[in-house]
Amino acid sequence: MNRKSIRKYKEECPSDEIITTIVRAGQQAPSTSQSYSVILTRDRKHHPFRAPLMFTICTDFHKMERIMAKRNWTPVTNDLSCLMSGIGDACYMAENMVIAAEALGLGSCYLGDSPYIAKQLKKRMSLPDRVFPVVGLVVGYPDEEVPTRPRYPLDFVLFEETYPELTDEQVERAMKTMDEGFMGQDYYRRHSAIIPLKVDREETYTFDTYGWTEHTSRKWGQRWPTSELILGNLFECGFRIPDGSWEDKNSK
Amino acid sequence: MNRKSIRKYKEECPSDEIITTIVRAGQQAPSTSQSYSVILTRDRKHHPFRAPLMFTICTDFHKMERIMAKRNWTPVTNDLSCLMSGIGDACYMAENMVIAAEALGLGSCYLGDSPYIAKQLKKRMSLPDRVFPVVGLVVGYPDEEVPTRPRYPLDFVLFEETYPELTDEQVERAMKTMDEGFMGQDYYRRHSAIIPLKVDREETYTFDTYGWTEHTSRKWGQRWPTSELILGNLFECGFRIPDGSWEDKNSK
Repeated sequence: MNRKSIRKYKEECPSDEIITTIVRAGQQAPSTSQSYSVILTRDRKHHPFRAPLMFTICTDFHKMERIMAKRNWTPVTNDLSCLMSGIGDACYMAENMVIAAEALGLGSCYLGDSPYIAKQLKKRMSLPDRVFPVVGLVVGYPDEEVPTRPRYPLDFVLFEETYPELTDEQVERAMKTMDEGFMGQDYYRRHSAIIPLKVDREETYTFDTYGWTEHTSRKWGQRWPTSELILGNLFECGFRIPDGSWEDKNSK
Repeated sequence: MNRKSIRKYKEECPSDEIITTIVRAGQQAPSTSQSYSVILTRDRKHHPFRAPLMFTICTDFHKMERIMAKRNWTPVTNDLSCLMSGIGDACYMAENMVIAAEALGLGSCYLGDSPYIAKQLKKRMSLPDRVFPVVGLVVGYPDEEVPTRPRYPLDFVLFEETYPELTDEQVERAMKTMDEGFMGQDYYRRHSAIIPLKVDREETYTFDTYGWTEHTSRKWGQRWPTSELILGNLFECGFRIPDGSWEDKNSK
């Protein structure tokens, strides 16, 4: 309940024993078919926040296909289904690693850009085909104390039996909780984190008024209008969505 | 490290306080934009393993778009990027719920079929457009004692700097660990879990020889050869992959 992302780390590098414990705890997450691999780097100069450790958690069908070949099976499942399942396996594992790190007194922070730099990661890490980087996770001893971050009110997340018609009041209350929560922690000012406007729209927000809902709206209102980049990266990593049609289209 | 899936539950229903704790712990998972909702059902007669509680964890862009509208933003991000991020948010939350349940003395088991019955779940749970069920999670007090399940050797999962060329010996050792591990627990016999052969292939396995690698090969070697079902369900839930082309193709 107290977990929060850490963006400042001490120099000290966690021991190999700790690394092993974190990854083993990750492995014990429930999984459909252990469709994951983890690449560890210790090159803190190139890690976000100069964290001593970075794990790149990938969904991995290369290993499964090596195993299938030894059992005389040929993979037939479509790639979208592979990805849906494999991203789940990778994320359950990653989250167990987050909790294990927390339990060992370490801090961590996810990096969500892996799918968008997958082509570069594939090259840098010699990923074989059918391996796709899902998320990065930096880990180390925290060198900052930060509060837990606000979340939606429970009644905006947990519904019983059916999804209710959400009233404007409910939406506004959830927005208020998030905006006042983050502004109360001076979060965006401390992180200099206002997302620049790329659209023809005048900037009217300051650090006194810019909150979580404006921040998050700017992500989904501006980023990646087409799937070209992510489909291209999936293609480079050996995944065809849907059913090879992207490949067909682009091989013309 | 000791977590395992539970498939037999006591009658006793966990209290509302416990339910709240589990979902609140889920919410504190790191997340890009809290793109999730959880539907709770208590209809144990219809739950797998007659578990007293079932959570259906959905990725949810409906709420985000309601918030964006109030901030005068229009969503532009392509649906594949929405899903990649939203499935992550949902899975991190789900795994925190798994760990919270475990910490409270409860057992749990994921149900991976949600994306494949999404159309039915949408109707039953009145899910609005832009909400897609990612995974089910049954929870209750365990009425069985089971061992932790085998996992790949660590050196088949964790790689440093680059992904190595995996030798046949490594693949075979990982297979042996998994097969002997599950057979040693008599797992497939206890669960009567041999996957029937749908292809023209003679059954040569018995419970004495059928292990994890054959089981898992039969999944990826037989299931969902095309993405039609999953793309159709995504379409029904308001997600177009990629970039509306599936819709265009099918509206002809």
